Amino acid sequence: MTSSQRLLAATLAAIAPLDAEAVKAARQRQDQLTKPRGSLGLLEDLSVQLCGLAGECPAPVPVEAAIAVFAGDHGVHARGVSPWPQEVTAQMVANFLGGGAVINTLAAELGARVLVVNVGVATELAPHPDLLDRGIRLGTADFTVGRSMSRDDAIRAIEVGIEVADTLIAGGARLLVTGDMGIANTTPSAALIAAFTGRDPADVTGRGTGIDDETWQLKVEVIRAGLLANNPDPADPIDVLSAVGGLEHAALAGFMLGAAARRVPVVLDGVIAASSALAAVRLAAACRDALIAGHRSVEPGARIALEDLGLRPLLDLDLRLGEGSGAALAVPIVRAAARVLAEVATFDGSGVTDKAQV
Amino acid sequence: MTSSQRLLAATLAAIAPLDAEAVKAARQRQDQLTKPRGSLGLLEDLSVQLCGLAGECPAPVPVEAAIAVFAGDHGVHARGVSPWPQEVTAQMVANFLGGGAVINTLAAELGARVLVVNVGVATELAPHPDLLDRGIRLGTADFTVGRSMSRDDAIRAIEVGIEVADTLIAGGARLLVTGDMGIANTTPSAALIAAFTGRDPADVTGRGTGIDDETWQLKVEVIRAGLLANNPDPADPIDVLSAVGGLEHAALAGFMLGAAARRVPVVLDGVIAASSALAAVRLAAACRDALIAGHRSVEPGARIALEDLGLRPLLDLDLRLGEGSGAALAVPIVRAAARVLAEVATFDGSGVTDKAQV
Repeated sequence: MTSSQRLLAATLAAIAPLDAEAVKAARQRQDQLTKPRGSLGLLEDLSVQLCGLAGECPAPVPVEAAIAVFAGDHGVHARGVSPWPQEVTAQMVANFLGGGAVINTLAAELGARVLVVNVGVATELAPHPDLLDRGIRLGTADFTVGRSMSRDDAIRAIEVGIEVADTLIAGGARLLVTGDMGIANTTPSAALIAAFTGRDPADVTGRGTGIDDETWQLKVEVIRAGLLANNPDPADPIDVLSAVGGLEHAALAGFMLGAAARRVPVVLDGVIAASSALAAVRLAAACRDALIAGHRSVEPGARIALEDLGLRPLLDLDLRLGEGSGAALAVPIVRAAARVLAEVATFDGSGVTDKAQV
Repeated sequence: MTSSQRLLAATLAAIAPLDAEAVKAARQRQDQLTKPRGSLGLLEDLSVQLCGLAGECPAPVPVEAAIAVFAGDHGVHARGVSPWPQEVTAQMVANFLGGGAVINTLAAELGARVLVVNVGVATELAPHPDLLDRGIRLGTADFTVGRSMSRDDAIRAIEVGIEVADTLIAGGARLLVTGDMGIANTTPSAALIAAFTGRDPADVTGRGTGIDDETWQLKVEVIRAGLLANNPDPADPIDVLSAVGGLEHAALAGFMLGAAARRVPVVLDGVIAASSALAAVRLAAACRDALIAGHRSVEPGARIALEDLGLRPLLDLDLRLGEGSGAALAVPIVRAAARVLAEVATFDGSGVTDKAQV
């Protein structure tokens, strides 16, 4: 076992389900708040999850959020699956670092940091205080003619994700938000979802940032070819990631595992995060308890992946941007859920008559 | 025309559609932001609406939000449509004023004020700095045996709502949020929705804060009886409000009209707000342009009313609390939509290649 694999193994071993006592206490407390029982719907479930993760009721309100945008390029871009040139990945990284992208504005609104993590952009990047450069290779290989990356590269990328979660949590973050950037990355996302769920590529392939019918058809065929060429084993998540995944997918899976090991919730963005979550949860089933689906992307694969994970998204705003945008927009709901459980008056002593007592 | 009716008439006369130039400029600016066109879904539409209301592009970010919780009681409560005693309305008003309710926590998270407006609680209320006491009568009459209120009472309640919008906007609010409190108020809401849309009471009646099958059946029959007894004219919104509405419904309609007249957006909460919006939009069609549906309540009538209004809700979290909770939870999305349009870099000069230019 390399030093690398030890971090992954230790992380997987540290992941445990929600604390049953805290879950029970949270349900009881929800039922004592001065409101009709169950009337806060998903907010109630969310508050219970946060207590179960924190191991206490009420859970601390996750005021400090941090967004990690994992960036990588994709060899499969050469097959013509995206209308955008590959250089846009590095250009958008520069835009994130310059504060000009949508995710920067959304992060500012949350008072959250945006850390950009290079795990596999196809060009060298200039140093920047908000860039963590952990490039593993200059983009993946074209998965229609071989594996995206070696098994060792996939493990290294997962461990970068664990490292990032550890670093952000050590820096005070109590809520992590997934972000991603990589031109063509909805193609490996759909391939991962098809591989893990057994669904046909046509069912899980969407239009990414906006492609025409002809390009969509090509994209489906490219994914089909990649699965045929590499025959990934759905029972071996690292095999699937290295066969048809992207470096940012592997890193995102690690990010989720790292957060789960430290019992910090992670808000998932769109189809890239959802496909990565399939890998994370197959590596450690209880990782799911740390995940919150920020939104339902318009990508059909996102819906299928979230159903497989049993996660109901908080938002459904027809977003298909990525960057972490949909997850960032959901953060205020997570904070509100925690704060309501912690602060709202209970029937005892409030002077409000409880229906159940009448 | 009484002094009262003059305020309503002047308000209706001041309501105009979105500014077409600002709408066009907003659409153009969205298409220049460094992201794929259309990738922000509903956020883009929202930003365009805000510009059209403000008459400028970008629109100012509505940082200052204010929540008005309109409280009233309902004579129809005597028919047994709710399991909660009527006193809970006044008890919850005290809870709002004491800062212990869900809406207080959500407002604190937004840095927003909660103003409680009494338009018809069945008991006298003690003065409080956050209570605006504009009680028109001690609850409505039981609409199964006559009108809920006189036509003049309905107009007075509408004008209280206009006054509240004016006051909050004069105080600096740039985003208004509807709230409501009134035990049994989902019953008049469903009656209003049935009257305005022509749908059968059984289609628009829900379980409110939680009622059993037998009570639900009774509730439907009570609504049917109310519509039969009063035969409201759907072409005359004030007739409908006074026949089967609540005082808070009339006030909420006025609140929306007042905001629209001053071109300030209003975020609607659940079924009480949606049913009131049907009246507001029938009084002034362009009022709709100022409305934002905060969420889709689990009440079936809410969905039907929003469809009638052509409003797509921002959130769908299985909420059924009221108080303004679902609207308050949507406020960060409205702010984010405005801020993205104002702050995100455009392709020109960002160094990011625009697909359309390749």
